[in-house]
Amino acid sequence: MACKFYLIKRKNLLAEFGHPWVFSSDIEGFYGTYKNGDIVEVYAHNNRFIGKGYVNDVSKIAIRLLTRDINEEINEDFFKRKLKAAWEYRKKVIDTSSCRFVFGEADFLPGLIIDKFEDYYVIQSLALGIDKYKDIIVKILKEDYGAKGVYERSDAAVREKEGLKQTKGFLTEPFDTMVQITENGVKYYVDIAEGQKTGFFLDQKENRKAIHKICKDSTVLDCFTHTGSFALNAGIAGAKSVLGVDISQHAVDFCRKNAELNNLSDTVKFECHNAFDVLRQWSGEGKTFDVVILDPPAFTKSRTTINSASKGYKEINLRGMKLVKPGGFLVTCSCSHFMSPELFKDAIASAAFDAEKTLRQVEFRTQAPDHPILWTDDESYYLKFYIFQVL
Amino acid sequence: MACKFYLIKRKNLLAEFGHPWVFSSDIEGFYGTYKNGDIVEVYAHNNRFIGKGYVNDVSKIAIRLLTRDINEEINEDFFKRKLKAAWEYRKKVIDTSSCRFVFGEADFLPGLIIDKFEDYYVIQSLALGIDKYKDIIVKILKEDYGAKGVYERSDAAVREKEGLKQTKGFLTEPFDTMVQITENGVKYYVDIAEGQKTGFFLDQKENRKAIHKICKDSTVLDCFTHTGSFALNAGIAGAKSVLGVDISQHAVDFCRKNAELNNLSDTVKFECHNAFDVLRQWSGEGKTFDVVILDPPAFTKSRTTINSASKGYKEINLRGMKLVKPGGFLVTCSCSHFMSPELFKDAIASAAFDAEKTLRQVEFRTQAPDHPILWTDDESYYLKFYIFQVL
Repeated sequence: MACKFYLIKRKNLLAEFGHPWVFSSDIEGFYGTYKNGDIVEVYAHNNRFIGKGYVNDVSKIAIRLLTRDINEEINEDFFKRKLKAAWEYRKKVIDTSSCRFVFGEADFLPGLIIDKFEDYYVIQSLALGIDKYKDIIVKILKEDYGAKGVYERSDAAVREKEGLKQTKGFLTEPFDTMVQITENGVKYYVDIAEGQKTGFFLDQKENRKAIHKICKDSTVLDCFTHTGSFALNAGIAGAKSVLGVDISQHAVDFCRKNAELNNLSDTVKFECHNAFDVLRQWSGEGKTFDVVILDPPAFTKSRTTINSASKGYKEINLRGMKLVKPGGFLVTCSCSHFMSPELFKDAIASAAFDAEKTLRQVEFRTQAPDHPILWTDDESYYLKFYIFQVL
Repeated sequence: MACKFYLIKRKNLLAEFGHPWVFSSDIEGFYGTYKNGDIVEVYAHNNRFIGKGYVNDVSKIAIRLLTRDINEEINEDFFKRKLKAAWEYRKKVIDTSSCRFVFGEADFLPGLIIDKFEDYYVIQSLALGIDKYKDIIVKILKEDYGAKGVYERSDAAVREKEGLKQTKGFLTEPFDTMVQITENGVKYYVDIAEGQKTGFFLDQKENRKAIHKICKDSTVLDCFTHTGSFALNAGIAGAKSVLGVDISQHAVDFCRKNAELNNLSDTVKFECHNAFDVLRQWSGEGKTFDVVILDPPAFTKSRTTINSASKGYKEINLRGMKLVKPGGFLVTCSCSHFMSPELFKDAIASAAFDAEKTLRQVEFRTQAPDHPILWTDDESYYLKFYIFQVL
C-alpha cells in the first residue's frame, strides 16, 4: 500500500490547481511508511485524491506528482506512454532531428530532462524519484526511439538540494560524445560530455532563425556567444561580417571549429573578451554595428538576487543599444525565470530612456515549443526574446 | 511663424517621454495664431522644445507630433524620408508583396495608415493634419513606389472625434478594387473598396503561418473566419478538413471564392453561423476537432467595456477548449488594445480552470513586424496570439 500524504487546509495550494509540486510546508501529515524515492499518494485535507508522485523529504519539494489518476501505475508502461506523448507533440511542433524530448514538469515527468542530438540522447535527472527509473528510460529510448547511445548529465548543482550527488557518464556502451547536429541549416559540434548543461541550448532554435532576416548584409556583434549559435545563424543568413564574443577561450576555440564546419570562418570571427567590458568600452568609443545580439547567461537563479540582475540587464542593454547604428537592430534575451517578463521589460525600457533611444519592437518570442510552457507551472516559463529596431 | 504651444508643468507628460500625442489637458497655453490642421511647435513649461506636429483643437488629442527636430520642415521631402524609412524597415523584416507600409504613430506619421496590396495602395487618414498631405502622399506612392492605384478608406468612425467626416474613394484614376494577393502561399481576393478596414487584416500574416505545423492532417474549426484566412492557411498546410464559421453570409460567400481560388473547396468549407452560438451548442454536443481557432473581432474598443469583453473572451475560450480533442490545439487571439496581455491571460487561465483543461503554451506571438510596437506608444501594441496544446 502506498503511503498517503494529506495536505493542510488552505486555499490556493498549488498542487490543487494543477501544479506538479507539493512543498513540505503544504503537508499536514501521512499514513503509512515510505522510503525517499517511493511513489506516494496525495490527498487534500478533505480526503479528495489529488495525485501520485515520488517523495523526497530531504527536498523542500517533498513530492512531485506524476499522475492525477489514482488507477495509473508508475511502471515501464507509464514511462512509455509519457515519452510517446512527448514525442508525438514534438513531431507536431518542431524539427525533431535535434530537440528537447522531455522538458520535466511541462511534460508531466518532473525532474527529468531528455535532449535528443540526432540519434544520441542526453538525460538529466534532477530528483531521486527519477533516478530510480533511469534504467527503464534508457531501455525505452533504445527500443522505441532508436537511441544509438545515452549519456547522463546529472551534474547539476540543484541535485544537492535533493540530497543527491552530481553525476555524469554513459548509460549505454560508450560512444563518441562529440556529436554533430544541424539546426536552421547551421552545423554544430555538440560536446555532450563536457559542454554546458546537456551540451547545447536547444531552446533558442526558432529565435536564432528569427534573426536571419535582419542579419542579411549586416555587420553583427554577438555577445555571450557561447557555442557561437547566434553568430553562425547571422553568418548563414548572409551577414557582411559577424563578431562573436565570449569570456571563455575554450568557448571561442569551439566556436571557431563550428565556423569552419560551416565554411563561415571568413565572415564569422570570434574573440575572447568579457562582454561587459567590451560593451562598455566599445560603446564609449562610438563603435557601431547594424545588429547587436545579447544572449547572456541567467543573471539570477533565485528571487533574492533580482535587483542586481535587473541592473545587469539594464547595463548590457543600455550599452548594446548605443552600439547599434540608427535604424539597426538589438536582439536581447533573458533566460532567467526569476527575471519576469515585466521586470525584463522594465530593465529594457529604462535602458532605452537613459540611452535616449527609441525602440520599435519587431518581434517578441519565448523558448521554442519543445520547451512548452505549462500554464499551471509558472517555473516552466523562463526565456524572453526580443528583436527591436533602435532609433 | 508657427504657433507655439506650452505644456503645463507636470511630471510624466507622455509627450516628454517620446509619445507622439499632446492631449488638450496637457496644454497651458499658446502664443501666436493657428488654424486646425496647421503645424505648430510644442514646448515644455520651461521653454524646452519638444516637437512639431499638427494641431486640432476639436480632438482630445490636440497635437500629434511629427518630429522632435526643430529644424525639420514638414513638406514633401519630410514625407519622402518617412516613407523611405518605413519601406526600408519592412524590406528587412517581412514579405513586402502585400504589407502594412505605414502604421501611423509607430512609423512617426500619426493618423496615417497605408496598406500595400501588390501594386495597389490603400490610405486611411484618421486626422485633419494628415488629410492636408494626402495629395503629397499619393504623389510619392506613384513616383517612388510604383503605385498603380491608390484608394482612400477613411471611413472610420474615429474620424468623427476629430470633427472629420468619414470618406472613401479613389485618389488616383479608378481601377478594379478587387485585388488579388498571395500570403504564405495562399491566394486571396481583397476587396479594398468594400472589405472591412482596408480590405484585409495583414497583421496576422506570420501568425497564420505559425498554425501550419499543427494543422497538417488535422480537423480544424476556424471561428470568426472573416475572409477565411486562418481556415485557408490550415487547408494549404494539409489539414484533413477545415470548417470556417462567420456570422455574415457575405463573408462566407467571399471565403468560398477564396477557397476556390486556391483549389481548396474540397477540404475547406465555410458555414454562416453566429460563432458564439455554435461554440456553445457544439461543445454541449461533445463535438471535437484537432485544432480550434478563435480570431474574434475586438470585444472592446474602450476602457469602459473591458469587464464585459473579459467575459466574452473567457466564454469563447472555455467553449473552444472543450471542442479540442485531448492533445489537440487551441489557437486564440485578441486584437483589442484595451484587453491588455495580462487581462487576456487571466481570461484564458480562468476559462481553462472552469473547463478543467490543462494548457501547454506552444507559442506566443504579437502582431506582424510591419505593425511595429513603438515602446513609447502603448497604443501601438494590440494583437495577442497564442497556440496552446489542450490536455
